[in-house]
Amino acid sequence: MGTIEPGATADVAPAETDERTRSRLLRAAVCIFDRKGYAAASVREIVEIAGVTKPALYYHFGSKERLLTTVLDEACREFTAAMERAVARKGTARQRLEALCEDLHGLFQEHVPVVRVAHATFFGPVEGAPPFDFTLFDRRLEAAVRRIVEEGQAAGEIATAASAADVSLVIMGVIGVFAVRQIHYSFEPIGLDTMRRVIGLIFDGVLREQGQQGERRQ
Amino acid sequence: MGTIEPGATADVAPAETDERTRSRLLRAAVCIFDRKGYAAASVREIVEIAGVTKPALYYHFGSKERLLTTVLDEACREFTAAMERAVARKGTARQRLEALCEDLHGLFQEHVPVVRVAHATFFGPVEGAPPFDFTLFDRRLEAAVRRIVEEGQAAGEIATAASAADVSLVIMGVIGVFAVRQIHYSFEPIGLDTMRRVIGLIFDGVLREQGQQGERRQ
Repeated sequence: MGTIEPGATADVAPAETDERTRSRLLRAAVCIFDRKGYAAASVREIVEIAGVTKPALYYHFGSKERLLTTVLDEACREFTAAMERAVARKGTARQRLEALCEDLHGLFQEHVPVVRVAHATFFGPVEGAPPFDFTLFDRRLEAAVRRIVEEGQAAGEIATAASAADVSLVIMGVIGVFAVRQIHYSFEPIGLDTMRRVIGLIFDGVLREQGQQGERRQ
Repeated sequence: MGTIEPGATADVAPAETDERTRSRLLRAAVCIFDRKGYAAASVREIVEIAGVTKPALYYHFGSKERLLTTVLDEACREFTAAMERAVARKGTARQRLEALCEDLHGLFQEHVPVVRVAHATFFGPVEGAPPFDFTLFDRRLEAAVRRIVEEGQAAGEIATAASAADVSLVIMGVIGVFAVRQIHYSFEPIGLDTMRRVIGLIFDGVLREQGQQGERRQ
């Protein structure tokens, strides 16, 4: 159908208008979900902010729930693509893990409201939770880190005594702690230089060893 | 005033009845906040589950908001005590950090619904957020880890090249990733043995070094 947006002119192709309406609705939904929470967000407010009609929302998404799962799906797709790029990248395991963390940090920064909505929904009450597989992001991130670590072990860069699954947990922890500082209004974000140092720490270890520590860490 | 609870007998001292009413209300509030979310929780449901009257709730807490901040305050106090014990404990920095992580892991396990409510509130929408300083837990944890790391550096156990603030971030990341697995219904909790291995990894580092890696990690 394609609701005509305010400001749309007659020479805009219907498919293009449709696409614009859809993305306006997604942006408006994120804005309201972020401010009020998913449960308290009303379809009326979303269409008002989007500047479209209620039928346009139902035509594109069918429901408020589907609007939320679409936001989460699209974010998950973009983050997954970043993980795939990290796995495909050349370099040492350390460089690739650093790049992965930096890419995710950059994506979080670019999509703060979406990441906040994802966290709020993830940690929100079970009753009223959307039908979304919240383990997806974690499982894909874990798989990407594991793959890079295992390739680093095969190349002799990473000690085989370090389990790839354990390294994943540490890396996921670091990504998590930086993400929280980025998205939560009570905290100051932490810069990328600190992230690089922290990853260096994971590689080098914090143990003091017969004077070599200084050389290994720079 | 002290509302008489159902089942309370005449020989129960008023103070004791008061204390019981208070803790029943706190438990009921956590249960409803956890299931429905703070915003959707009603005072009516809380008093019903607690088996007390509405005036008893207002006498003890004044409002639903105060009920939530009391839950968060008490949890924060208990977690802070665990951090203080970790700082006061004897042993190497590694043993003390391990013990701190294990103690927090144990406390999370003991108080899963409270920790879940704390996360839901922390990550929930800004509108309707309770007047609670969410940085408190993080700041205290960071201070405790920093202190232990600095003492480990002074004792020559930890490389001085490792910044205590960076080590804190890694440790907080690990605590966070384990906590999420403990409290979220989509995940399986991760055992303490894995947590110990992961902390070992942070100390030893994942880098492969001229054959020493095997000895250092056991």
